[in-house]
Amino acid sequence: MTDSPLLPVNDALNRILSDFAPLPAEPVDLFNAAGRVLAQDVVSEFDLPPFDNSSMDGFAVHAADRPLSDDGAPVVVKVIGDIPAGVQPSLSLLPGQAARIMTGAALPEGADCVVPVEDTDFPYRESRVLPETIRITRFPAAGVNVRPHGQDALAHQPILRSGQVLTPPAVALLATLGLAEVKVHRLPRVAILSTGDELVKPGQPLPPGHIYESNSWMISGLAAQAGALPLQLGVSPDQPDAIRQRLNQAIDAGVDLILTSAGVSVGVYDYVRQVIEEDGQLNLWRVNMRPGKPLAYGSYRGTPLMGLPGNPVSAYVGFVVFAGPAIQRMAGLPAQPRNLRRARLEHDVNSDGRESYLRVQVRSGPDGLSAALVAHQGSGNLLSIVRANALLIIPSGVKSLPAGSEVDIWLLADSYSEVGA
Amino acid sequence: MTDSPLLPVNDALNRILSDFAPLPAEPVDLFNAAGRVLAQDVVSEFDLPPFDNSSMDGFAVHAADRPLSDDGAPVVVKVIGDIPAGVQPSLSLLPGQAARIMTGAALPEGADCVVPVEDTDFPYRESRVLPETIRITRFPAAGVNVRPHGQDALAHQPILRSGQVLTPPAVALLATLGLAEVKVHRLPRVAILSTGDELVKPGQPLPPGHIYESNSWMISGLAAQAGALPLQLGVSPDQPDAIRQRLNQAIDAGVDLILTSAGVSVGVYDYVRQVIEEDGQLNLWRVNMRPGKPLAYGSYRGTPLMGLPGNPVSAYVGFVVFAGPAIQRMAGLPAQPRNLRRARLEHDVNSDGRESYLRVQVRSGPDGLSAALVAHQGSGNLLSIVRANALLIIPSGVKSLPAGSEVDIWLLADSYSEVGA
Repeated sequence: MTDSPLLPVNDALNRILSDFAPLPAEPVDLFNAAGRVLAQDVVSEFDLPPFDNSSMDGFAVHAADRPLSDDGAPVVVKVIGDIPAGVQPSLSLLPGQAARIMTGAALPEGADCVVPVEDTDFPYRESRVLPETIRITRFPAAGVNVRPHGQDALAHQPILRSGQVLTPPAVALLATLGLAEVKVHRLPRVAILSTGDELVKPGQPLPPGHIYESNSWMISGLAAQAGALPLQLGVSPDQPDAIRQRLNQAIDAGVDLILTSAGVSVGVYDYVRQVIEEDGQLNLWRVNMRPGKPLAYGSYRGTPLMGLPGNPVSAYVGFVVFAGPAIQRMAGLPAQPRNLRRARLEHDVNSDGRESYLRVQVRSGPDGLSAALVAHQGSGNLLSIVRANALLIIPSGVKSLPAGSEVDIWLLADSYSEVGA
Repeated sequence: MTDSPLLPVNDALNRILSDFAPLPAEPVDLFNAAGRVLAQDVVSEFDLPPFDNSSMDGFAVHAADRPLSDDGAPVVVKVIGDIPAGVQPSLSLLPGQAARIMTGAALPEGADCVVPVEDTDFPYRESRVLPETIRITRFPAAGVNVRPHGQDALAHQPILRSGQVLTPPAVALLATLGLAEVKVHRLPRVAILSTGDELVKPGQPLPPGHIYESNSWMISGLAAQAGALPLQLGVSPDQPDAIRQRLNQAIDAGVDLILTSAGVSVGVYDYVRQVIEEDGQLNLWRVNMRPGKPLAYGSYRGTPLMGLPGNPVSAYVGFVVFAGPAIQRMAGLPAQPRNLRRARLEHDVNSDGRESYLRVQVRSGPDGLSAALVAHQGSGNLLSIVRANALLIIPSGVKSLPAGSEVDIWLLADSYSEVGA
């Protein structure tokens, strides 16, 4: 270990992000568009809505037929036709005439408003026969119950922007424009490798001195949540050739990022580091953070590689602080601010002066949010992440925080609804 | 329309929810477990960690060898063996002896603490050859750098509970326990049907008087987001036989819920209502809400059916208020509180006395959150949902709110990070 000054977390993040750019565009059909990130601006070819239409089931009329003095006496008009939705009306209203019209149907010539069926004497639910005349008890003004063309958006105006996530309503908007296909950023492909002779696949018997491998399951889930397609390379024993073979598999698959866990530290069996140094390059940064001070970052055969720590808590924090933002940038997303809130500490907390990310449970109370450390905070304790709903961020330079301090907490992706107001 | 009193939103929701229960359990393997909801409690068969192990790369020693007076003079110990991770140590330390040990490796007999390599004279990165002796510059106390078995969790204690969502760290925890398979609630299957002669599939030419169909895209995306497997039944023309054929397709597929949009109102071409009344039952509730006052709810051939309005904004609100919670209950999730926050209104807002759900853009400022209505609020305007990041909830009985009022806003699922602190 060198004794170079510690690298601030934000500097490390910026160095990493400068290696990543949004991935190229590819077409996607509407069935697979939800959750993808637009790689094009979207412009409507026509007005939305495309034509004046009725917002009610009722009768299209002309406001000029409205009586000048509103004495409450019903107005009788002649019904000359029927306009279901999906039909371009061929009829044209003269004064004193009406046409039955359905919600969404195009307004006929000569009409400028719609009387809802409730404001007429027509027994809608009982009869489908078109009446000869109707009595209107409340005559609308011009424009009432009409959705004019272009009310929502005018033709040739940008409606969605490149970089926008296609939420379900945004996919529906693409459908409204008639687009069956749209350009989105290609999904980042992320390979995940765990190494260690002590690691056993879940479902197998556990020999003495061994533990079940868990990091690749966590990291592939987090990568998928961040918007990537994970490729699980499985577990490699601590042998250079076995590690090299799996890394080459990732290169053959054309991945955009490789995430390893363990094997990049100072241990004599840390062969991941050796293999990467032989066929790529690896920097071991001393980052001013806890956990995760040693951060391995480099490339293998030209593909960016991040070496996360073997301890699950350190790997988790390393992922959300560094790998997640890199994946989001490749996915074409604008920089995502951390979901920060302010909370009161429920007890004293000590730190060691590094920027610290501690696992807390945040509760909502009458005075706002409060935060308490969960379980014990050892970096091997996966349960502390499972039971946490936020990370408490202790800034660099702070060594102790008394109970009651106002602190920054970072809400974890899965736990929004658990925190409450 | 009858003139029965309006049904409060919460009463309507409770009536609906009483028809749904968590779906039966099914096994799922770890590869497909992320995001699923546990249908069993999970208990560890062994302690976590399963054995005392080293948290550092270094040398296992016994604290009894620590000099009584700490005069800073290094202690020399004899190295009698090497313990990589994944090996059950066969050696046993006598006084004055040490064993090289890797992070995660089991502590040998006779050792009770670990000296990190940095506190010895061993040139780790330069040599892999086991030294005969090492000089320890800082001798640890008993227990230092040791993770004792059971520190994270004891055997036979519940670790995860039925109803918990399997986040990536929770999946990793299952892996840690060696579980390759676990019981989760079956995913709710939800069929989605749009009806209307005016509706055209995206990608086709648009004849006059027609619009592109969009609701099924939005609703299937929302259903997937809520945890369901959507089955898109496509678009049916306004013909009873065509509607019946598609609903029967949903029944054949064994869906748990049918969501229709449009066709259940008082229009003469509202054949969805007719078909459901013939082969099931349909209640048209007058709910005290805006949009979405008429809510159609019932069943078709024994399967629950909700008739969402045809207007996209009304369909959206109907989904998030009623269908989403029903899907979440089937998925086995505990009742999800709405993600509510308080915000200041940026301008006056009028309402009609019904509980109203208006589309707002929420911004974060120095004084907290503020909310402004987006676009125009017509229930046909899909853009108002796309551009909103929250729903403003105006309580029943309130007809106007002046600028500056403190109001409840409901953050939409996709927009957490956009709102900020």
